[in-house]
Amino acid sequence: MNSTWGKNIRISLFGESHGECIGIVIDGVKSGIKLDNEYITKMMQRRAPGKTKFSTPRAEEDVYQIKTGVLDGVTTGAPICCIIENSNTKSGDYENLKSLMRPGHSDYPAYVKFGGFNDVRGGGHFSGRLTAPIVFAGSICRQILKDMGIEIVSHISEIAGINDDVLDEAKLNDYMNLTNETFPVINKAKGEEMKEAIENARMDQNSVGGVIECVVSGINAGIGNPIFHSVESVISGVMFSIPAVKGVEFGAGFDIAKMTGSDANDEYYYDGSDVKAYTNNNGGVIGGITNGMPVKFRVAIKPTPSISKPQKTVNVKTGENDEIVVQGRHDPCIVPRAAVVVESAAAIAILDLILEDR
Amino acid sequence: MNSTWGKNIRISLFGESHGECIGIVIDGVKSGIKLDNEYITKMMQRRAPGKTKFSTPRAEEDVYQIKTGVLDGVTTGAPICCIIENSNTKSGDYENLKSLMRPGHSDYPAYVKFGGFNDVRGGGHFSGRLTAPIVFAGSICRQILKDMGIEIVSHISEIAGINDDVLDEAKLNDYMNLTNETFPVINKAKGEEMKEAIENARMDQNSVGGVIECVVSGINAGIGNPIFHSVESVISGVMFSIPAVKGVEFGAGFDIAKMTGSDANDEYYYDGSDVKAYTNNNGGVIGGITNGMPVKFRVAIKPTPSISKPQKTVNVKTGENDEIVVQGRHDPCIVPRAAVVVESAAAIAILDLILEDR
Amino acid sequence: MNSTWGKNIRISLFGESHGECIGIVIDGVKSGIKLDNEYITKMMQRRAPGKTKFSTPRAEEDVYQIKTGVLDGVTTGAPICCIIENSNTKSGDYENLKSLMRPGHSDYPAYVKFGGFNDVRGGGHFSGRLTAPIVFAGSICRQILKDMGIEIVSHISEIAGINDDVLDEAKLNDYMNLTNETFPVINKAKGEEMKEAIENARMDQNSVGGVIECVVSGINAGIGNPIFHSVESVISGVMFSIPAVKGVEFGAGFDIAKMTGSDANDEYYYDGSDVKAYTNNNGGVIGGITNGMPVKFRVAIKPTPSISKPQKTVNVKTGENDEIVVQGRHDPCIVPRAAVVVESAAAIAILDLILEDR
Amino acid sequence: MNSTWGKNIRISLFGESHGECIGIVIDGVKSGIKLDNEYITKMMQRRAPGKTKFSTPRAEEDVYQIKTGVLDGVTTGAPICCIIENSNTKSGDYENLKSLMRPGHSDYPAYVKFGGFNDVRGGGHFSGRLTAPIVFAGSICRQILKDMGIEIVSHISEIAGINDDVLDEAKLNDYMNLTNETFPVINKAKGEEMKEAIENARMDQNSVGGVIECVVSGINAGIGNPIFHSVESVISGVMFSIPAVKGVEFGAGFDIAKMTGSDANDEYYYDGSDVKAYTNNNGGVIGGITNGMPVKFRVAIKPTPSISKPQKTVNVKTGENDEIVVQGRHDPCIVPRAAVVVESAAAIAILDLILEDR
Repeated sequence: MNSTWGKNIRISLFGESHGECIGIVIDGVKSGIKLDNEYITKMMQRRAPGKTKFSTPRAEEDVYQIKTGVLDGVTTGAPICCIIENSNTKSGDYENLKSLMRPGHSDYPAYVKFGGFNDVRGGGHFSGRLTAPIVFAGSICRQILKDMGIEIVSHISEIAGINDDVLDEAKLNDYMNLTNETFPVINKAKGEEMKEAIENARMDQNSVGGVIECVVSGINAGIGNPIFHSVESVISGVMFSIPAVKGVEFGAGFDIAKMTGSDANDEYYYDGSDVKAYTNNNGGVIGGITNGMPVKFRVAIKPTPSISKPQKTVNVKTGENDEIVVQGRHDPCIVPRAAVVVESAAAIAILDLILEDR
Repeated sequence: MNSTWGKNIRISLFGESHGECIGIVIDGVKSGIKLDNEYITKMMQRRAPGKTKFSTPRAEEDVYQIKTGVLDGVTTGAPICCIIENSNTKSGDYENLKSLMRPGHSDYPAYVKFGGFNDVRGGGHFSGRLTAPIVFAGSICRQILKDMGIEIVSHISEIAGINDDVLDEAKLNDYMNLTNETFPVINKAKGEEMKEAIENARMDQNSVGGVIECVVSGINAGIGNPIFHSVESVISGVMFSIPAVKGVEFGAGFDIAKMTGSDANDEYYYDGSDVKAYTNNNGGVIGGITNGMPVKFRVAIKPTPSISKPQKTVNVKTGENDEIVVQGRHDPCIVPRAAVVVESAAAIAILDLILEDR
Repeated sequence: MNSTWGKNIRISLFGESHGECIGIVIDGVKSGIKLDNEYITKMMQRRAPGKTKFSTPRAEEDVYQIKTGVLDGVTTGAPICCIIENSNTKSGDYENLKSLMRPGHSDYPAYVKFGGFNDVRGGGHFSGRLTAPIVFAGSICRQILKDMGIEIVSHISEIAGINDDVLDEAKLNDYMNLTNETFPVINKAKGEEMKEAIENARMDQNSVGGVIECVVSGINAGIGNPIFHSVESVISGVMFSIPAVKGVEFGAGFDIAKMTGSDANDEYYYDGSDVKAYTNNNGGVIGGITNGMPVKFRVAIKPTPSISKPQKTVNVKTGENDEIVVQGRHDPCIVPRAAVVVESAAAIAILDLILEDR
Repeated sequence: MNSTWGKNIRISLFGESHGECIGIVIDGVKSGIKLDNEYITKMMQRRAPGKTKFSTPRAEEDVYQIKTGVLDGVTTGAPICCIIENSNTKSGDYENLKSLMRPGHSDYPAYVKFGGFNDVRGGGHFSGRLTAPIVFAGSICRQILKDMGIEIVSHISEIAGINDDVLDEAKLNDYMNLTNETFPVINKAKGEEMKEAIENARMDQNSVGGVIECVVSGINAGIGNPIFHSVESVISGVMFSIPAVKGVEFGAGFDIAKMTGSDANDEYYYDGSDVKAYTNNNGGVIGGITNGMPVKFRVAIKPTPSISKPQKTVNVKTGENDEIVVQGRHDPCIVPRAAVVVESAAAIAILDLILEDR
C-alpha cells in the first residue's frame, strides 16, 4: 500500500467509500495562510455527487472538517488533517462483491493483493470517493498558487466522442468562469450534445468516458527537473492516481508524434522582455522544465465501469465462471465531476514542484 | 535537480553528453546475481548511436564499465556504479548555444533554472545520451524479471504517421525476436515505409517522431498500489523521464474515452485455474494494480528537435530576437533507438513495484 | 514541517495538544491482521497522563478511534487512521505563551520557524501528547513483531542520578512483566528511591530527567543496512523524534569509547547451530546490520522543561528581557511515561527495517 | 541495501575498499558555485590514511576525480559524481575472511544479509574507506554553509579515557585552526597523552576508541522540524552512518538526564536584538528546531575492531568454533581521522535541513 505522496507537500490519504469517513493529512503547507473556505467548499461541491442527473443519486454533502493544523482559520504550519464523514452509505448493495469480481473495477486485483481482506463496500479505499480529499488538498494548494499568479483551468474536451472547442491559451482569462461550473465546456451546444450522450448511456444501463484538458497559466520558466521528476513525470504520476485515468499527454501529445521537427518545435521570441513561444506543442515543458508557456495536458478517462448490464466474470469463492449485474447508484459518466479533481491534483503537483525550486 | 529515482531499486543518474562520462549508481539489487554481460551489451548496442543511417553519425561505442558492486561477475549487494566514457565529442559544434536557445530543446528552461551555469555542450545532462545508463540499469532489472518469468517487448507502433501492425498479446512469444532488433517492427513492409519517411526527413533537414508500444508479459495479478504509486503512475513517471516523450497511455488509452462501459470493461473468465480477461482495454492494470493480463502501454515521442532548418529564437545574451541553424550530428528520428530505452525504463519501474509487494 | 516518516511503514502524525484531536495515519500495514485492542489499550494506558501522582494531573482518557483501514477488527491493507480526541484542555493557562518564550520548550524555535502562527496552546504540535499516536502505531507494529518472535522490553535505567539494576540480556524472559508496568524498574527498592526523587522535585516546583534502556530480542542477524539507514541510524532517528530526548547510545555506547578493541569486540561462538556472541558491547548491531544478539540501546531524557520556578526569558512581543513562571499541569518527570513511547517508536523502526529485507 | 541518503541534498555512495574505486554522486547542489578545490583537498587529507604513525600504514593518496556536474570549476546544477581510485590494495591479506568472521566487524552480519556474496576484501562496502567520499561531499556542503556564515568545528574530546579541555562555545573563533589539524585537540598536552595511549595500544596489538565533539556555529534559529526529521534525528542519522559510531548526544546529552529542570533549561535574553541563551544544555536544538545557539553534539567511536590479538570466532564454512588473528594494516585508533568525517557528515545534514526551510 502506498497512499502517501509528495516531497515538499506531503499528502497521506485514507478512508473507504462505505466506512466511517475519508480524509487526508497535508504536511508541508506553510504557516500564516488564511484559508478561503468559501473557495474550498465551492470546489468540493463541483466534485460532490448527486448535484446533477448525470451523476450518481448518492447525495453526499461532502462536508469537510479540518481537525488540525489550522487555528482561527489560519494555517499554523503543522499538518492539516481533514475528515469527510460518509453519511449516505447503502452497503447492503455490495454484499456479493466478495465473490463476484466486477469487470473494470479494482475488485479482482485488490482481492489478490489483499488476500480478500480489503473493504469491498463501494470499492473501499479504491473508490472514486477518495478524490474528495484530493480536491480539498488541491484547493488549498490552488489558493497558494493563486497568490503566485498561477491559475488552473480545465474543461471537458471530449465525452462519448463529442468534442468541445479547443481551449485558446491566449485567451485564458476568458475561461476563468469554467472553474465555477459543474459541467465545464467552452461550447455550450457541444455540452448539450455530451449531456444527451450521457443520458442515452444511462437509459441504456451503460456509461461513457471522455477527456479533460487542463491548463496551468502564470507559471514561470525554470520549474521542474531533468530526467526523473520532470514536470511531466510528476503531473502524470498524480493524474494516473485518479481512478479511471488511462492516458495523459502534454501539449500536442500523441499528435506530436505525427509532426515534423520544424512543425513541432516551439519557436521563441521576445514579447517585451518576456520570452514567449509562437506555439505550445510541448505543453509548456521541455527537458522536464517549464519554458514559461502555459503547462497544458489532457487526461483520458474511461467510462464508468459500474454498469447495470449483465457481464461475464469469475466467482472467486466458487472458482467458477459466473455473471454479474452491478447494482447500486452510479454515474453514467464521471468526466464532469473529474474536471475539478484533475485541476486539484495538478495544483498539488505544481506546488510540490515550485517548492522544490524556491 | 533530481536525478535520483526509486524506492526499492534506487538509481542515481549522472553525466553530460560532452563531459568526461555518463553513468549511474544502482542501489538495491540483491546479491548473488551473475550478470549476463552479453545481454546487457546487446541491449546497449540497440540504443547506441551510429549503428544505422537513421541515427546520428556520432559513433559512440557505449562501452560500460562496472566499477563497483560486482565481484567476479556476480552482484555483491552493494551499489553498482557503471560509467560510460564519452569518447567521440565535438564540443566546438555547440559554442553558440550559450546565447541562442534551440527551439524544442531544454536550452531555455535549463538556462533559466541554472542561471546559465548548465553545461550546454550537446545538451549536457539533458541529452538523450543519458538514456544509455538507463538501458544499463534496465537490462540488469530485466535479467532479474526474466528469472521471474516476466518479459518486456516493444515495437515501433508508428513513425511519421505510418503504423505498424497491432501487437497481438495472445502471441507474445512470437515477438520475442523484436528485442534483438535495432528497428523493431512486426510488419517489415511498414518498417520500410517508416525508414523511407525518416530518410526523407533527413534529406529535408527535418525530423520525424513516433510511438512505441510496449508489453510486459508474465506479471502476476496483485502488483501495484491504489491511488498514488499506481502501476500507471510509476510507469508513466519513468516514461516521462525519457527525453522527448510527450504522451503515455495504457491499454486502449485515449481510445477508451470513446467507448461505452460495456465495451471497455474487460470481462473475466477462468482459463483452467487462472483468471483471464477476454479483452485488455485496461492494459493489465485496474485500480492501480495488475490484474494478471499483460501490462500494455504506448509512448508518444516527438520529432528530434535538432534540425538544420533555420528557426526563430531568442538570444539571451543580446536580449534580442534571432535565428538559429542547429549544427552537429543528429538523428532524424530517435524512435527506433528509443524502443530499448522504453523497455529498460519499464523494467526498472516494474521491478521496483514487484519488490514493494515481495 | 515534516511529520511524515518511514519507507515501508509510513506514518503521518497530526494534531495539537489543545486542539480538537491528535492522530496518525499508518500506511503499509499488511491486510489480514486481527488487531489486539486489549493490548493496544494497555500500552496506551501506560503512556496516558494522570495515572500516577508522578505525572500531570491532566487526566486524558486517550481513547483511540480507528477510523479507517480496519474492518470487523481486521486490517484491510488500506491506511489506518486513528484519532484521539482532546477532552481535557485548559487553554486559558497558556495565553501569555505567545509573547513569553518558555526556556527548554519549543516556543522560541517554533515562533521563528512559523512566524508566530503556530498553535502555542499546550505546546501545540510539539507537545509530548503527540507521542500517544506513536504508541498506537507502535503497538500495532509490536503485535506484528511478536508474531515473528520479536519482543521489545524497556526499563527506567536512571532517574535523577539513581540507577536501576542492569538488564541481563540472558534473562530477557524474566523481564516481560515490565511491559505491563507504569513504572518499569528491575530493582523495586531503587524504583522507590526514584519516586521519592520525583516527588521531591515536584515539591520543589522543579523536575528531573532520566534514561530509558530498551532491548529488542528475537531479531535475526542480517537486518539493516551499511552506511545510511543503518539500524542505529533508523532507530536513533525515531528516538530523537520523541520530545526531550537528548542522547542515544547502542550497546556499551559512550563507555565503549573507553575500552580497548580486545575488550570491546564481541567474540563469536556456535551455540548449537546458532551464532552467538559472548558479550554485546555493540548492542546487537555491527556495520549497521544486526548480528543476531539483542538490539540494545539507551535513551537520555531531559527533565521536563515545564517548571513553576521563575525563569529568565525574552518577550518577543515587547522585544525585552522578561521573566516567566510556567503555570499549568505538568509532570515533574516524564521518564516513566516515556518507556512505552521508546518501545513503540523502536517497534515502528524495527518493523520498517525488517520489511526492507523481507 | 540503502546507500542513498537525503531529501534536498541527495547523496549516493558506492564502492569497496579493495575494489577499483569508491565514490559518490551528489544531487541537489545548486549551480554557479566555484568549488574550492584547495579546501576540499585539505579536508580529504585530514582523513586520508598513512599521514601519521597513529593511522594505518596503507598510504592512499585519496585523489578525488570530479567526473560530472562541474564545468570550468563551477557547479552546473547537474549531479556531481566523484570517484576516488583505490591504488594501494593488498587483497591477499584478506583471503580467509570468507570463512572466519572478525569480531567487531561487519563480516558476520554482512555474510548473513548478502548470503556470502559481499566483497569481504578490506571490509568491502562496509570499510571506513567509504567515509572518504563523505568528506568530499561534506566539504562542498561546508563551502556552501560558510557562505551563509556557518562554520563547523570539532575536536577530539576523549581518547582512551583521556579528556581534552571543554570547547568554549563563546570563543569559537579561537578554535578555527582545529579544522586544519590531523589531531585536533584544544589542550596539546592532553593530545600528547592521547597519542601515547594510542602508541601503547599499537605496541600491544590492540586499539582504543574515543569521542568527537562537534559544534556548528552561525546557524539561525528556526531550522529543523518537530517530531520526525528533527535536527537531532537528521544529524544522528548521518552520524550513526559512520562506521564505529555507537553513541550520539546533543548539548549536555546523557548528563542532562541527571540535572533538574531549573538547571537544564537554557534561559533566554536579548543580546542587542538577538535572542541568546545563557547556557546551551540543549545543544542549540529544542523541539527539533534550532534556537540560534550553536548546535553541539558528541559522537562516541569504538576502538578499531581490527586487532592482531587472537580472538575467538566462528568459521561459517566449517560451522565450527575457531580462532582468528586479523592481519593487514590497521589504525590503532581511528578517532583522529574521524573528526573531519564527523564535520563533513554534519555539513551534509545541516545543508539538507537548511534547504528544507529556504
